[in-house]
Amino acid sequence: MPEAASAAATRATIGDSEFDRDTAVTRRAPGVYDIDLSAGWTIINAVNGGYLLAVLGRALGDALPHPDPFTISAHYLTASRPGPAVVRTETVRTGRTLSTGQASLFQYDDEGNEVERIRVLASYGDLDALPDDVRTSARPPAIAPMDQCFGTEDGPAPVDGSSAITDRLMLRLDPATLGWALGRPSGRGEMRAWFGLADGRDADPLSMLLAVDALPPTAFELGLKGWVPTVELTAHVRCRPAPGPLRVSVTTRNLAGGFLEEDAEVWDSADRLVAQSRQLARVRLG
Amino acid sequence: MPEAASAAATRATIGDSEFDRDTAVTRRAPGVYDIDLSAGWTIINAVNGGYLLAVLGRALGDALPHPDPFTISAHYLTASRPGPAVVRTETVRTGRTLSTGQASLFQYDDEGNEVERIRVLASYGDLDALPDDVRTSARPPAIAPMDQCFGTEDGPAPVDGSSAITDRLMLRLDPATLGWALGRPSGRGEMRAWFGLADGRDADPLSMLLAVDALPPTAFELGLKGWVPTVELTAHVRCRPAPGPLRVSVTTRNLAGGFLEEDAEVWDSADRLVAQSRQLARVRLG
Repeated sequence: MPEAASAAATRATIGDSEFDRDTAVTRRAPGVYDIDLSAGWTIINAVNGGYLLAVLGRALGDALPHPDPFTISAHYLTASRPGPAVVRTETVRTGRTLSTGQASLFQYDDEGNEVERIRVLASYGDLDALPDDVRTSARPPAIAPMDQCFGTEDGPAPVDGSSAITDRLMLRLDPATLGWALGRPSGRGEMRAWFGLADGRDADPLSMLLAVDALPPTAFELGLKGWVPTVELTAHVRCRPAPGPLRVSVTTRNLAGGFLEEDAEVWDSADRLVAQSRQLARVRLG
Repeated sequence: MPEAASAAATRATIGDSEFDRDTAVTRRAPGVYDIDLSAGWTIINAVNGGYLLAVLGRALGDALPHPDPFTISAHYLTASRPGPAVVRTETVRTGRTLSTGQASLFQYDDEGNEVERIRVLASYGDLDALPDDVRTSARPPAIAPMDQCFGTEDGPAPVDGSSAITDRLMLRLDPATLGWALGRPSGRGEMRAWFGLADGRDADPLSMLLAVDALPPTAFELGLKGWVPTVELTAHVRCRPAPGPLRVSVTTRNLAGGFLEEDAEVWDSADRLVAQSRQLARVRLG
């Protein structure tokens, strides 16, 4: 069978997928990693913040003695562009159950000087070492079945400009949160979608760092247009996700003073709340 | 009038209160601050994490060009003790609207070596410069009127050990979330209280960093006992609070794998959602 046909017939797997290749970091020195940021995860020419968080998360997973980001906080400083970047990590503390690290992503200005794009603090652990206890009152989001949800292929591009990331995501939006695309935003700060990678790769903690920042801004359903840049985003990964698509629910309750919060929940196919995030973002009131 | 009687008759003010004196940092060098951590904000001999966050927040407010913590993320590394400490700050980026900084609090081991207690990343701005727009769907928490709530003076100390912080807080707990103190936890991960400083000082952004981590753990209402140490806490300050007591609501939805999240909301007397926080904490399942 020709290689192309074979690839098309085969679902990508964790460790062997475009997401894995595009987040791969190369160790230059202890704790220092090079990466060429892919143009494949851009939205209107800006590199997606979740993809960048996954890159930083991957570097820290290599630098720290524990593999999984339990809680990772990112402050976004300047806009990243596709192309060369370096991640510099620092091991802050190592413990038996958790280790804490810091990482910064830098790119280069015209004179070749490093410009810091993002700085993160994170505490890592081993999800597989956690006990199985679950005592939760959280309920999965009310989201329509996947075949009643809409992908970007179902209509005209709702946002102008090149958005390469849409080709790499399996993102199917709940019709109840799609009013904005039809010019009738609901007025509620809610966005819900089924989420996966387009090549069929299953979810893992790193792809969930992408998932929490991959939906259209809730501001669209509040009737706002334009950019909603993230100031800070913190994600908690609580459980290794089961195979299959994720459900992602994002809610904004408080838009005030030109800022809003976006709270994301990520649920897996086994009905586990596998990740939570909150970000503070700026809005341009239209 | 004798000084003691005069003090008792006067409400403390922002800038002239025990909280202000106990969070005051002394600049040793640019970006480096000394402080003597007060024993007055301990709970069972551990220094309260919200008090420590306020100390770090105050140092960053001095070091950065903007005064107010819009979003601050703290990773707790080792347990702090009352006594000398040093805060080392770094200005990461300064912009027109926001500036980003990092700070670490260190104490000293028996050989006099610095031991890092907490590391934070924060983005600061100027709350007074924000537009007045509020488009919120958030509603104030359902909390009983203050005269139907209970303070620590209303019963036996629910937690053994010295807890100096209780003398410095005006904390009145909603009876609906007080079952744990009577041996009948509700099973719901909720804690609600009226919050202020005991000396009558009004709230400001720094005291709200204390408020988000000052209630008894939600785990108590889930029927768990013992310590619930914070791994990471991120707080967003969204508005300068109006004078008067705050209402603080803390909710845990997902206790799993030995960790839980605590989501706090802080509301002021003008019914504004003035701060939000989320922390990831470890639990010892009893």
